[in-house]
Amino acid sequence: MDKNIPYKIYLSEDELPKQWYNVRADMKIKPAPLLNPATGKPVTLDEMSGIFCRELAKQELDNDTPYIDIPAEILDFYKMYRPAPLVRAYFLEKALGTPAKIYYKFEGNNTSGSHKLNSAIAQAYYAKQQGLKGVTTETGAGQWGTALSMACSYFGLDCKVYMVKVSYEQKPFRREVMRTYGADVTPSPSDTTEVGRKILAEFPGTTGSLGCAISEAVETAVNTEGYRYVLGSVLSQVLLHQSVIGLETMAACDKYDIKPDIIIGCAGGGSNLGGLISPFMGRKLRGEADYRFIAVEPSSCPSLTRGKYAYDFCDTGKVCPLQKMYTLGSGFIPSANHAGGLRYHGMSSVLSELYDEGLMEARSVEQTSVFEAATQFARIEGTLPAPESSHAIRAAIDEALKCKETGEEKTILFGLTGTGYFDMVAYQKYNDGVMIDYIPTDDELAKSFAKLPKI
Amino acid sequence: MDKNIPYKIYLSEDELPKQWYNVRADMKIKPAPLLNPATGKPVTLDEMSGIFCRELAKQELDNDTPYIDIPAEILDFYKMYRPAPLVRAYFLEKALGTPAKIYYKFEGNNTSGSHKLNSAIAQAYYAKQQGLKGVTTETGAGQWGTALSMACSYFGLDCKVYMVKVSYEQKPFRREVMRTYGADVTPSPSDTTEVGRKILAEFPGTTGSLGCAISEAVETAVNTEGYRYVLGSVLSQVLLHQSVIGLETMAACDKYDIKPDIIIGCAGGGSNLGGLISPFMGRKLRGEADYRFIAVEPSSCPSLTRGKYAYDFCDTGKVCPLQKMYTLGSGFIPSANHAGGLRYHGMSSVLSELYDEGLMEARSVEQTSVFEAATQFARIEGTLPAPESSHAIRAAIDEALKCKETGEEKTILFGLTGTGYFDMVAYQKYNDGVMIDYIPTDDELAKSFAKLPKI
Repeated sequence: MDKNIPYKIYLSEDELPKQWYNVRADMKIKPAPLLNPATGKPVTLDEMSGIFCRELAKQELDNDTPYIDIPAEILDFYKMYRPAPLVRAYFLEKALGTPAKIYYKFEGNNTSGSHKLNSAIAQAYYAKQQGLKGVTTETGAGQWGTALSMACSYFGLDCKVYMVKVSYEQKPFRREVMRTYGADVTPSPSDTTEVGRKILAEFPGTTGSLGCAISEAVETAVNTEGYRYVLGSVLSQVLLHQSVIGLETMAACDKYDIKPDIIIGCAGGGSNLGGLISPFMGRKLRGEADYRFIAVEPSSCPSLTRGKYAYDFCDTGKVCPLQKMYTLGSGFIPSANHAGGLRYHGMSSVLSELYDEGLMEARSVEQTSVFEAATQFARIEGTLPAPESSHAIRAAIDEALKCKETGEEKTILFGLTGTGYFDMVAYQKYNDGVMIDYIPTDDELAKSFAKLPKI
Repeated sequence: MDKNIPYKIYLSEDELPKQWYNVRADMKIKPAPLLNPATGKPVTLDEMSGIFCRELAKQELDNDTPYIDIPAEILDFYKMYRPAPLVRAYFLEKALGTPAKIYYKFEGNNTSGSHKLNSAIAQAYYAKQQGLKGVTTETGAGQWGTALSMACSYFGLDCKVYMVKVSYEQKPFRREVMRTYGADVTPSPSDTTEVGRKILAEFPGTTGSLGCAISEAVETAVNTEGYRYVLGSVLSQVLLHQSVIGLETMAACDKYDIKPDIIIGCAGGGSNLGGLISPFMGRKLRGEADYRFIAVEPSSCPSLTRGKYAYDFCDTGKVCPLQKMYTLGSGFIPSANHAGGLRYHGMSSVLSELYDEGLMEARSVEQTSVFEAATQFARIEGTLPAPESSHAIRAAIDEALKCKETGEEKTILFGLTGTGYFDMVAYQKYNDGVMIDYIPTDDELAKSFAKLPKI
């Protein structure tokens, strides 16, 4: 071990970031504006404020302010589980025999099991500040719903979660954690909303999708006095809150003179990847430093690597603002055989724009190779990773093995977003050798693209 | 918040303990010797070494050496998940409105989910040093089996786990974590051992017990070339390894001038409680400081508060050495309705002796009040606690509420041994309002005591 770099770097409380960083402020080309699906025109703050908390809607539309103060109550809550450690993967380096130096920012040391809590507590705080009674949301794998339940419990807000039905049934323990934090969890599609009833009528056997659950959550928020809708990924406000990941990581790197060459994150809607890379991307955009950024997505839901950069609906019910993003089409649902999370059809508009400009790379990986990397990592580094995070592990190991071939001593940094303790059904499939890979055909994608809105 | 005390105290790597502390060295009255069940005489090192690794057998019999160096390989592994934070429960204090200061040592930030890893890695290390092929063990709730699987995977040892059948069936995900770390998991009683077949013949419908699983694990170790048996609690060697909890806690307390008045831990076999209090008890025994120590056990399995201090068998098959301890009788099995762990019939001989001399207090708590405390803690402090740890939370909250009545500013320290992520079936029972308490009758205990060996 390098005597100058501890295995785990924990910042002290007074070194923690006091502001979030908004990477949009440093982007020369800003993300395209959100459009009102009814008018086709850019949504206004007032229109947004009917669905989202007003302060969050402001953050969503703010492309200019580089730093935004983190309110004291949120800083206090962050202290419960932050700083998250930046870990030097000494054991993994040794096992791979690579000259590369590998670091990971571990966001799983909290009961929600992932980085999602960083934005959940912010969104719950602004809802409370606005005097709201509660919030609604959707959850797929369950991390976001759990995080929001914890945040709402802390601020005494009601929390209604629409959980994709297949997860609701396969992950009863996730559901139970949410209930323990006082949340009301409904399997989606449900008969509690108009959009849910419509989808149930059209597809009676459906096991649900994130797009559908979003529509139900939005409908309920709009129709319930004192409620607003909150979302755990994709949105620019979420990347803003998640920038705390990157800011802490950058502070730790600067403190120990660690200079990452490659920064890797898994990408579903982009919350973790965007949060991790934002401040580093800021330096790159300002010409202060250079990094390679790699987004890793599942080959079963390849929005960046095979999607179209176009305006699309964020939800099945088409009630949310239209967003220009890399998308597989809002009707696209990855195969039920896909166990590794990251199932959303679109991608953060910020990351989409950065990718389109060539400032970030993307690659897709198959899930059996992801679980192979996950198991290897668990056995060597101790922590059993979430399937989502394991996409980043796969790419980090691949890059480290390339360094082994070339002899390059690159510094590789990746985001370990969470733990897999509620994903043992997927691990069991892998352990039993019955996990299969799935890659959508060009035909399948073409059919989905054909339904993109004409804008 | 007190500006001088951070919410979480993390020691730096160079402040971590380099030696374990053996509290027996400072005890005026030593724990009674282990007896060979065949001869009724104190077991010798050679006899012990047929079942346990030789170095561990030495540690078991060593009542004199106060400090034992932690081998470098174990220190390296400890860095993966240690230091464990000492947390100031600011949020809980505020919610209770107590003048007491509450601290907890949190041992759950690792994939095994508990403190058990501290001893598992030590035992696996000594097995590897001895050139063994593998180890066997039993597990009830699953924390110990998971910890040992991780430790064996790290050192490349085979790991055979006998898992109490009721847990094997109710906790498939625990089993799956062990499998992910390469362990071989068998539900107990099984037909793979003589003792298992005998128990199955006598009680065909049995769902198993820890005592029976221990017997199967010992039998397999003794009959398999290159194997030894390892145990996660009760033994004095385990308390030695777990002293790392108390040593870290004491270092953090000393650094920040925190002087605990009351130190609380849950007590099953005693591994966590013994580890947490050992160095503090050392100070008390040497007359350097005074503390109140409180062992908290479930009222359904009250070995300290209602047991007898007598020689008893550690296992159902009566193959392990006899130990003088507080015991409910080796045939005692707590009601199946009891969900909160800590189900072992006996108690560490070290803790039994300290309790018998009045150096430590004990109390029992009912499980619905334990889950009430657990839920309260989860919502206020963020972390969803293990049912076992929640016994300590219950007592800590009770002591803090007493301070509220009296106005005393006591400093209360407790051990939060782990997380409850694999215990959601129990939480669900509590959330659904169907959890019931169970207290054994005097008659029931008298019948069990009648079967104690006559020594």
